[in-house]
Amino acid sequence: MKCRVCREPAVIDLRRHNANFCAEHFLRHCCQQVERVIHDYKMFSPEDRLLVAVSGGKDSLAVWDILHELGYAVDGLYVGLGIERYSGESLSYVSDFVDRRGLNLTIVDLGDTYGFDVPGAAEATGRVPCSACGLSKRHVFDSAAVDGKYDAVVTGHNLDDEAAVLYGNVMRWQVDYLGRQRPLLEARDGFPRKAKPLVRLTERETAAYCVLRGIDYQVEECPMAIGNKHLGFKETLNLLEDRSPGSKAEFYFGYLKRAVDRFSDAEDRGRLGICSGCGAPTDAEVCAFCRLVSRSAGATQPVAFKARNEATVSKR
Amino acid sequence: MKCRVCREPAVIDLRRHNANFCAEHFLRHCCQQVERVIHDYKMFSPEDRLLVAVSGGKDSLAVWDILHELGYAVDGLYVGLGIERYSGESLSYVSDFVDRRGLNLTIVDLGDTYGFDVPGAAEATGRVPCSACGLSKRHVFDSAAVDGKYDAVVTGHNLDDEAAVLYGNVMRWQVDYLGRQRPLLEARDGFPRKAKPLVRLTERETAAYCVLRGIDYQVEECPMAIGNKHLGFKETLNLLEDRSPGSKAEFYFGYLKRAVDRFSDAEDRGRLGICSGCGAPTDAEVCAFCRLVSRSAGATQPVAFKARNEATVSKR
Repeated sequence: MKCRVCREPAVIDLRRHNANFCAEHFLRHCCQQVERVIHDYKMFSPEDRLLVAVSGGKDSLAVWDILHELGYAVDGLYVGLGIERYSGESLSYVSDFVDRRGLNLTIVDLGDTYGFDVPGAAEATGRVPCSACGLSKRHVFDSAAVDGKYDAVVTGHNLDDEAAVLYGNVMRWQVDYLGRQRPLLEARDGFPRKAKPLVRLTERETAAYCVLRGIDYQVEECPMAIGNKHLGFKETLNLLEDRSPGSKAEFYFGYLKRAVDRFSDAEDRGRLGICSGCGAPTDAEVCAFCRLVSRSAGATQPVAFKARNEATVSKR
Repeated sequence: MKCRVCREPAVIDLRRHNANFCAEHFLRHCCQQVERVIHDYKMFSPEDRLLVAVSGGKDSLAVWDILHELGYAVDGLYVGLGIERYSGESLSYVSDFVDRRGLNLTIVDLGDTYGFDVPGAAEATGRVPCSACGLSKRHVFDSAAVDGKYDAVVTGHNLDDEAAVLYGNVMRWQVDYLGRQRPLLEARDGFPRKAKPLVRLTERETAAYCVLRGIDYQVEECPMAIGNKHLGFKETLNLLEDRSPGSKAEFYFGYLKRAVDRFSDAEDRGRLGICSGCGAPTDAEVCAFCRLVSRSAGATQPVAFKARNEATVSKR
């Protein structure tokens, strides 16, 4: 197995590209895929200030590392979710990453700042944990980006993530979500611009990227996500991909090329007002996050590693 | 387990409908589902003359039986494909069905009429057998319906078939096919009207219908279709359905309700001319079927039961 570029021994085979790479050219391949996405979707320019949503997993650390290497100005934002051992560990990976590179990281702990955590909110509201978690993270990232005057929020969604979300939306024909499923969402109505530069890399590729770059990341899946539908959709797509390499990319990029524009009018774009609680854009009197906060107030569970979450690390 | 309607012991449970039925009320349920589809999609009226494409499998015999019971005037057309033992057996089920009911059946044997059969054509052209078979059947059904001045061609496509075809078209975003995937296609450009009245019944339901009605049908899958992608898509959808009953119907009917119209402009509807060989509508000088015939001429394989295929049975 030889590297497609230099013919030296390869360390990874990418069946979808029908190519093998040595470590050096695989890392270059990852950076090129990200540059191509940034260019194709006009995501941002080197003058922009970016805020990456970082979790301690392979994807968010990889996207931060790649953008930093490419010379973009990227700060990080970590949200402490209060999920037992899991949250404490995830923060330790992020802290290690920023310490080595001297990057700026802001930490918002849901418990300290809003008086609830994800397990508590799920229990108090009867929502599934992933729903309360997603809502909270979106709110914190959006407000931090707007308040900090960042030009875009960057997330580490990879090809597997995006294909699985698309798959779920297609299986139920949720046309309002389908119209919004793009690698770049422009700022509008008080929401920041949002960019997903990793959509041309699979999770196997972002994991390999981290390993080869010596980036330690949290391997464990979130214990609260186990059994959710999203992971089931990923499994199904992986079966199709095994049988026919490239079918996942064909599904996702075929959608972007030939179908997404057909759904762009499906989104409910009624005028948004301003939340009377927090000032965030919302179509209700009080936004969904503030309603979650008021229903979950005081609902926190004891967290190991809590001490790590209390400080706001901020360096460059 | 009791019948939803009469509370007598049930013979079948339909998880998707969260209902059980006795034999009598299950058969009525099947007829009602077909009537609903005919009504919702304005498929045809009792004055129309219908031609059902019949294979000897559960679906085509069920649709013929149901439409006959509902009082529609339906003749049958069987195409002899020349697939070894399989074709001979399939014809014997059809013959038995029409003999008992005194229905009109026309038989067109590809070998006798066009000098080739499906295995021979696949070998001569390098096409997969399902492709040569589908092309041939479409051509024979379409011309017979137009020549016989039928108001519509009826096929036995069930919910599993339609969901699997939709799934395949979505996984590759074949937008031209997506725009045409409806239970009713109007006549146009020399093609007959085409109707699929079984789209609200699964293949488990059409099989149970035949069993309860005492209709013998060919159970065996076509030996040439084994391993094709369509069957793989059916498996995947069955896994999703097992986990979450109703998801197959949600996928297919959600598409018809919220998405199909978004693809209706995607079809290539350039003006069609007339095939210089057979007079069928085509966008080329010679239609795809005539090209298949000329490349496959003389390509037939010895067929068991051949004698059964030679006669044209026509009764009422």
